[in-house]
Amino acid sequence: MSNKRVVLVTGGTGFAGSHLIEELKTISNLEIHATNYGELPVYAQDLLPKERFHQVDLTDFDATAELVKSLIPDEIYHLAAFASTGDSFENASRVMQNNLTLQINLLHAMRQHCSQAKLLSIGSADAYGESLSKEEIPIDESHPFRPVNPYAVSKVSQELLARAYARSYGLQIILARPFNHLGPRQTTAFAIPSFAAQLVKIERGEQAVVEVGNLSAIRDFSDVRDVVKAYTILMEKGKVGEAYNIGSGVGLTVKSVLDQMIELIQAEVSIKHDAGKDRPLDIPVVIANNRKIKQLGWQPKYSLSDTLTQVINYWRAQ
Amino acid sequence: MSNKRVVLVTGGTGFAGSHLIEELKTISNLEIHATNYGELPVYAQDLLPKERFHQVDLTDFDATAELVKSLIPDEIYHLAAFASTGDSFENASRVMQNNLTLQINLLHAMRQHCSQAKLLSIGSADAYGESLSKEEIPIDESHPFRPVNPYAVSKVSQELLARAYARSYGLQIILARPFNHLGPRQTTAFAIPSFAAQLVKIERGEQAVVEVGNLSAIRDFSDVRDVVKAYTILMEKGKVGEAYNIGSGVGLTVKSVLDQMIELIQAEVSIKHDAGKDRPLDIPVVIANNRKIKQLGWQPKYSLSDTLTQVINYWRAQ
Repeated sequence: MSNKRVVLVTGGTGFAGSHLIEELKTISNLEIHATNYGELPVYAQDLLPKERFHQVDLTDFDATAELVKSLIPDEIYHLAAFASTGDSFENASRVMQNNLTLQINLLHAMRQHCSQAKLLSIGSADAYGESLSKEEIPIDESHPFRPVNPYAVSKVSQELLARAYARSYGLQIILARPFNHLGPRQTTAFAIPSFAAQLVKIERGEQAVVEVGNLSAIRDFSDVRDVVKAYTILMEKGKVGEAYNIGSGVGLTVKSVLDQMIELIQAEVSIKHDAGKDRPLDIPVVIANNRKIKQLGWQPKYSLSDTLTQVINYWRAQ
Repeated sequence: MSNKRVVLVTGGTGFAGSHLIEELKTISNLEIHATNYGELPVYAQDLLPKERFHQVDLTDFDATAELVKSLIPDEIYHLAAFASTGDSFENASRVMQNNLTLQINLLHAMRQHCSQAKLLSIGSADAYGESLSKEEIPIDESHPFRPVNPYAVSKVSQELLARAYARSYGLQIILARPFNHLGPRQTTAFAIPSFAAQLVKIERGEQAVVEVGNLSAIRDFSDVRDVVKAYTILMEKGKVGEAYNIGSGVGLTVKSVLDQMIELIQAEVSIKHDAGKDRPLDIPVVIANNRKIKQLGWQPKYSLSDTLTQVINYWRAQ
């Protein structure tokens, strides 16, 4: 008879999901399962045995229920979501529909098949949106939701749905609101990996200049390994029904991060602004108040220069 | 050359929509159009000429854009939505998908074809959800969103989407948050018309007892004619970007409303509680702080007894 806790990671082959699985593998007595949608990425073979990856489209109601029923997980780390923000006005319906449908399907499946399980639902600092005064920065968990694009609205809605199911059916739900995080395997739909991929091409002589969007925005960057560590701490010690920011507490301009990255590149780099990369509305300053997660014993371990080195080396290996 | 303002009412053949059209007809210099989805109800012929009803499924992106492009409305009263709440956990995906898709489609169409138009987006007091202390009642517009079912989440999301489009594309949007409203043509999916329909059957000897859900909830009831009057005031005088409660400011138990209705019935009535009509979570007290809309000159005109008489007579005529 196994005393192992059954853990399900939705979106387990995605950027944060794959790093979370690496972190979970350092915890004993877990039977780790993950969902994947589409072709398994090459790196998946180093994460888990193939049979632990479940090919499930979480926007499919029956398939989601079937999976949860077959695993009866003790813990669900729910990371699966459409993550793009820059173009989410163009894909607004699809982003909203997918993110809300998969949220509802998972909550419904929990309610039916594992109502005692704990769910860590991964939101986003994008849910906060605009801050209206300096007093609202750094952003704590009581900051109002003022999302500025459909992706961000979908993250608010996912959280509100989780709370509604929790309130009506007694589900045990904890909410994470990660700020920007960086690391290998993040796609070039995000600014920093897009810079990294371009810088590596410049280093190889395959590209002349790095094309960038708005560099003046101030953001709060963490290493993805610190973020997924916070997820496991929240699953263990987070208070049910509560939301927790995950961020460094430090604000940096995107420009200063790009400058640090350029220092790591063996080539002269010049920068070109591409207005096509600008968003209709880019929030000027986003910095986390991380007091609440720190009170649970979390502390970021990785320096930004370590993180950026990892990112650059990842793109060099592609 | 016409100086008429072109007005589009989405959901114009629904409960509130049909009453709004009656109100708009009392205003001069309007060219009123409405959307309808499915068969035109019988009462539509008294509202507008047939050609002013546009058979459009607003969850259809192209059809919505086509309509807005052809009309180029000056004002849009956006009432179309799936309105059920009692069973919205069972229909969660469909309710969310429909309400968000039609919201996005309309906002996108405005952005493309009539970005100077004014939009009154109709939300719901359900968006507020739970109040956590007596200080939060009566509910003013700064009350946090704590929706307790998927329908309510969809109303929050519709408002947040409207705000996101307004913020990013400069659309002129005003937000209405009506509390409970009553009148002819409201469907029996809602408690009061369900009571009315049953009471009329009892009066006719066709039914023995009135079956009810939770009667202890305290709600804020308005006459639909007062509510749609508020919509026209908001379109004229509401501040762009602001949300406005529409409610009487008076809280009554559902039981006391039922008692008033029973007084209007020519028969002995006994009440039977049907647990199947209870919701997973019914918010105990919902009362509007209506200071903000009153400052625009709105004042409810109809008494509850007048409203209930209208409702009972409507069901007698069915």
